[in-house]
Amino acid sequence: MKLYTYFRSSASYRVRIALQLKGLNYESIPVHLVRGEQRAAAYADQVGDALVPSVETDDGHRLTQSMAIIEYLDETHADKPLLPRDALGRAHVRALAQMIACEIHPLNNLRVLKYLVKDLAVSEEAKTAWYAHWARSGLEAFERQLALLEAERQADGLPASTFCWGDAPTLADCLLVPQVFNAQRFNVSLDGLPRLMAVVERCNALPAFQQAHPSACPDAE
Amino acid sequence: MKLYTYFRSSASYRVRIALQLKGLNYESIPVHLVRGEQRAAAYADQVGDALVPSVETDDGHRLTQSMAIIEYLDETHADKPLLPRDALGRAHVRALAQMIACEIHPLNNLRVLKYLVKDLAVSEEAKTAWYAHWARSGLEAFERQLALLEAERQADGLPASTFCWGDAPTLADCLLVPQVFNAQRFNVSLDGLPRLMAVVERCNALPAFQQAHPSACPDAE
Repeated sequence: MKLYTYFRSSASYRVRIALQLKGLNYESIPVHLVRGEQRAAAYADQVGDALVPSVETDDGHRLTQSMAIIEYLDETHADKPLLPRDALGRAHVRALAQMIACEIHPLNNLRVLKYLVKDLAVSEEAKTAWYAHWARSGLEAFERQLALLEAERQADGLPASTFCWGDAPTLADCLLVPQVFNAQRFNVSLDGLPRLMAVVERCNALPAFQQAHPSACPDAE
Repeated sequence: MKLYTYFRSSASYRVRIALQLKGLNYESIPVHLVRGEQRAAAYADQVGDALVPSVETDDGHRLTQSMAIIEYLDETHADKPLLPRDALGRAHVRALAQMIACEIHPLNNLRVLKYLVKDLAVSEEAKTAWYAHWARSGLEAFERQLALLEAERQADGLPASTFCWGDAPTLADCLLVPQVFNAQRFNVSLDGLPRLMAVVERCNALPAFQQAHPSACPDAE
């Protein structure tokens, strides 16, 4: 399996975590986003949205979109499941992942920040405020959702979660950790998010998360 | 089952399509986004991100995030599956859905357009250009991905798709149709997207898609 990745892409980081958690071997192919390598024909001719990450399976199929890739890895490798067995648990885990992938990250990725500066002539200060606004409000929503899910578990007689949902990392944790890493890189305050930060700390203590970290990538700068 | 929905919310529209395709009964509870009803305690105390849609199941569990809700409906009601049976097909369908849910819609929803105008003092003209840029570039990427997937099906000896993937609507079609409806509402050109538009036309000819349309909602204005 080949993973087309960029060390600082948080969507790539999600898939790297999943690969490490599941203990899968892969070849890392760097695609340098800042140099625009994702738009070169060699890459863009294979990937409709010309984004990273993408995966080339051993039988030559190309997979795109980080959450879809992680679910594929999970479905094709049963060991160390990244989604709960029950439909309700799966719905909660997917929803947490989507709170990051659909509400925070799309507003704060490189091409959007570039559009703000180049096309809308937004100042550096206003760009930073934009980043912080969506990251902070999205993470606050995530914190509230973790509290609601904890109350539901209690009502249903389930033990308290130690990760986003349950007692092992899932798809949701694969998305949360890179988003928090990104927020820290942009100096967004993470005060007042105790549940979420406890989960991140627990994740980052695990070798799988450490091995997937941007600084551990072959293409790290 | 209760669906908290707003007629013009394209994320709600996705779930309405899925409910109709699967032939499931539900009670429609309108949440008026423009009046800010989603931020009132009655709603926001139950839903971490205070967004629509959300679903309350018959046993009182609250589900959020449209793609997660649709997968839950699909997993708990086997009839009329909205995802293929094979992992590769599921990966492709989920990736197509995520191209809409993670790359187009988040940039163009109401609260983001409001931030552009109120916080960044962007002109109406620049706001319209922003909308068109992300909608158009995202739909062009979707069109390219449909062509790539078609080539893959051909290489794998599968029949050509009549919908986004295969010969029946899936999660991907549930997301594509509301996004195209939205683009039309904002007068975004849909020229040069023949595969995608053929799929949308085929979907919109089906009663399930017609019954889920914003104009068919009890809260339509």
